Amino acid sequence: MSFTRRAAFTLPVGLYATAAFAAPKKTTTPAAPALERWGLYEISLKGPDTGNPFLDVDLSADFTDGAEVVRVPGFYDGDGDYRIRFSPPKTGTWRWVTKSNVTALDGQTGQAEASAPSNTNHGPVKVTLDGYHFAYADGTPFRQIGTTCYAWAQQSDERCAQTIKTLTGSPYNKLRMCVFPNVAAEPIHPFVQTGTGDRDWDGTRFNPAYFRRFESRVKSLLDIGVEADIIIFHPYDEKRGFSDQNRVHDERYLRYLIARLSAFRNVWWSAANEYDDIKTKSMADWDHILELLQSEDPHHRLRSIHNIKVLYDNNKPWITHASVQNGTAVLDDRTAETYRSVWKKPVIFDEVCYEGDIALRWGNLSGQEMVMRFWHGHIAGTYVGHSETYTPDKSGADGSWLGKGGTMLGTATPRLAFLKKVMEDGPAPGIDPIDKWWERHVGGKEGRYYLRYFGDQAPAEWAVDLPRNGLKGGEQFRVDVLDTWNMTVTPVEGVFTMAKKDNYNFHDPARPTIKLSGNKWMAVRITRV
Amino acid sequence: MSFTRRAAFTLPVGLYATAAFAAPKKTTTPAAPALERWGLYEISLKGPDTGNPFLDVDLSADFTDGAEVVRVPGFYDGDGDYRIRFSPPKTGTWRWVTKSNVTALDGQTGQAEASAPSNTNHGPVKVTLDGYHFAYADGTPFRQIGTTCYAWAQQSDERCAQTIKTLTGSPYNKLRMCVFPNVAAEPIHPFVQTGTGDRDWDGTRFNPAYFRRFESRVKSLLDIGVEADIIIFHPYDEKRGFSDQNRVHDERYLRYLIARLSAFRNVWWSAANEYDDIKTKSMADWDHILELLQSEDPHHRLRSIHNIKVLYDNNKPWITHASVQNGTAVLDDRTAETYRSVWKKPVIFDEVCYEGDIALRWGNLSGQEMVMRFWHGHIAGTYVGHSETYTPDKSGADGSWLGKGGTMLGTATPRLAFLKKVMEDGPAPGIDPIDKWWERHVGGKEGRYYLRYFGDQAPAEWAVDLPRNGLKGGEQFRVDVLDTWNMTVTPVEGVFTMAKKDNYNFHDPARPTIKLSGNKWMAVRITRV
Repeated sequence: MSFTRRAAFTLPVGLYATAAFAAPKKTTTPAAPALERWGLYEISLKGPDTGNPFLDVDLSADFTDGAEVVRVPGFYDGDGDYRIRFSPPKTGTWRWVTKSNVTALDGQTGQAEASAPSNTNHGPVKVTLDGYHFAYADGTPFRQIGTTCYAWAQQSDERCAQTIKTLTGSPYNKLRMCVFPNVAAEPIHPFVQTGTGDRDWDGTRFNPAYFRRFESRVKSLLDIGVEADIIIFHPYDEKRGFSDQNRVHDERYLRYLIARLSAFRNVWWSAANEYDDIKTKSMADWDHILELLQSEDPHHRLRSIHNIKVLYDNNKPWITHASVQNGTAVLDDRTAETYRSVWKKPVIFDEVCYEGDIALRWGNLSGQEMVMRFWHGHIAGTYVGHSETYTPDKSGADGSWLGKGGTMLGTATPRLAFLKKVMEDGPAPGIDPIDKWWERHVGGKEGRYYLRYFGDQAPAEWAVDLPRNGLKGGEQFRVDVLDTWNMTVTPVEGVFTMAKKDNYNFHDPARPTIKLSGNKWMAVRITRV
Repeated sequence: MSFTRRAAFTLPVGLYATAAFAAPKKTTTPAAPALERWGLYEISLKGPDTGNPFLDVDLSADFTDGAEVVRVPGFYDGDGDYRIRFSPPKTGTWRWVTKSNVTALDGQTGQAEASAPSNTNHGPVKVTLDGYHFAYADGTPFRQIGTTCYAWAQQSDERCAQTIKTLTGSPYNKLRMCVFPNVAAEPIHPFVQTGTGDRDWDGTRFNPAYFRRFESRVKSLLDIGVEADIIIFHPYDEKRGFSDQNRVHDERYLRYLIARLSAFRNVWWSAANEYDDIKTKSMADWDHILELLQSEDPHHRLRSIHNIKVLYDNNKPWITHASVQNGTAVLDDRTAETYRSVWKKPVIFDEVCYEGDIALRWGNLSGQEMVMRFWHGHIAGTYVGHSETYTPDKSGADGSWLGKGGTMLGTATPRLAFLKKVMEDGPAPGIDPIDKWWERHVGGKEGRYYLRYFGDQAPAEWAVDLPRNGLKGGEQFRVDVLDTWNMTVTPVEGVFTMAKKDNYNFHDPARPTIKLSGNKWMAVRITRV
């Protein structure tokens, strides 16, 4: 794979559309290639390459379909190239006009024709109206099964290709990834270097090659249907201090990311990993960063922030969903549910310890323990993130999946694919805890669908008691027994006809219990006939 | 006990000080009885008794000690009596001057001399600087062991005397109680009745006798050292609709409560019980109610709101501590801890199901289950509330402790006294979860004090592993085994000298484990020598 800009932006047709402009002012020559709703439209302009264009040049374009106007920021891509990227939220004709403090870039006009999306383009992921789940903009549910490869994007092309191959066809549909690497990476720098020391770099000059390379990784995820949860700051590189700049520099960096990346429909913004370990920023700084993302991103991508110990107040209006680290929150569904109830937003437990074999306790889950956490999260109506931390001996000298991507060595992945299939076969956009705040451990949709997960318990039978809400008696259900580790679905013969059992439960008096295998990792699914 | 106003306000000296004024304007005749810091000082004035004084008369007094000015609202107490109540936050001379739109009440002056508090007066309860616990204003820790008797204050004097007797010497130091009764009560009405129908009452005219009676109950709790967690609205009386008035009426009611009650130092404000079941108020109404309490109460009493299903956003600035209902939050300490971490405020689980024997699931905990919930809350650095719901057959025809107070029939109370003693013997102002977000189940203070509770597990031995933070090796601890049900403390002989065990733990290599009884409800306490 090549990292020249051209390569990144000429494939495939239908996802990208570009309009290139020669120098003569006011002469517009739209290339008018195929552009889809939620695709990426790019305006290319030639402008000054002297001075410091990152500081000196203001550039934006107003796009309108006649009903709304979207102001889209532009950015400098080096060598006198300026670009403005827009992802049309609706089909139809979007006329645009540029604004700039540079004459050559100001007052350019053109139009983009956004057609209906192709089959694999469902639009960006949004929070659903119920407030707790996700769906693509076209309404297709987004059943989050996340994973993390912090610095995969900064590895060699070969390693990145391997990562993409690993992800292709896997259950993972969201990947957490850092803009600034946290582990050893290819020798390319996000800022222009002014010397050979760690701190010898110019925070006012981005290195376009670095960001072209980074966005090509985002694009390669888009091509395989994986959301890119982009981690903007992190505490793991105090030596170089990319996350320790002042507010003026941070704002410029955020605006650069917005201008370059927000038009990719698979972009999510994660303000930080372990934000509370970044000693150079205050809570007011984080509020400001997230508020800026909210107000300045014309594409309104999802926004969250990930903690180590101090939970962010996810009730704040610029947070679209919670991104939580907690080693024990998904040891049962009840604790997981708590976060949902306090924030009333979707909750993703993006870090719940990792499958692996390192000595540190956060990186040595068995596959069973990893999968159990996902199931507890699902029953609670929340979502979970995976990663792997197998030691270099097992994963090769390049380090773990968590740090660099590559290949996976764990056993959780196929079981998470099984869980994802269960999710997809269940109600849209997701399930909710039923009779929460009681010892039920049941998620679903009242009257329609129930899922009970037994984790590391190994019951030999189970009373098929359904919580009363949504039931009147007479409803018929079929029951499946799921082995979540061996990935089997075994239907229980016949139907269950519900009748009131007591103050809180309905059941079938003719068959109040079912037999189970006595194995661990079992679940029961109860579906209205 | 008499409910005339005089009876309520003449005893005991030292808690009350009153200044009574005859009619002639500008002639002040302060009685200047003994007044303590945090005691109650009352100005009595004669004014109009025609028209509707509740609507027509504005009255307040500015109190100043020269350093600060406190504006204190007055209220109408019927029969031409107007009162202004002030609890001095500091010792010294507090000069005051009244303001009113009625000439007879305006421009009165006087002064109050606040002496140092007596031994049993520790001041009002405040949130401690660490943000998670409570202490009286003089710094004495307040170890909350709550209970609830919703409508005890509206029962007969005899029943109330019985309630006070039950509470005296009990572990309970906070009582949740409603202004408006939720169960059968004495035939006295908070508003002036205009007919015999349920809705025949005048929301613009309070019944002073009702509120005098109510405040005498608050006062009787103060006399025995119990905080009064006053529930302002509730959803249990749709028939009469006291909680369903409009905002103008609600504001007047809130101001009346503030003026009458806030000078009692044991008052806490609970905006509602099960606020989300009151269908006539929106979230904006609740915000407004709590913000009004925050801005208008000159004594800044604690403020919370109690839910049924929808948690209030306790991050809001007018909330001093969370008041949570959840049937399962304290089934383990980890879930309980979650609430603390998200709100970063003290958390009281005011409703966790009750000890009792009714058929409804929220009212049939065993004593063991009730006590277990308190211990889990304590390990998590949170607080819990008790009540009893034994059926009338057992508790007499007058109903349960939960509804009406009286006597208790349960077995939890002495065990809660034992827990309270453990709390009092522990660090001030309280303990915090240690190595939270891991499966530790340990609360305490790092390096100083550790408490591990086993609940309904029944281990025969336990590895004395202390989480690493706060330890370097060489520290010595003594260990006590607590039987939380049989209320015994058994010291383990000798000391434990800590050394590093692994990445996360310290222990004594010479004695890494201790034997336990194999019984349920055990705990281990580890105290630095």
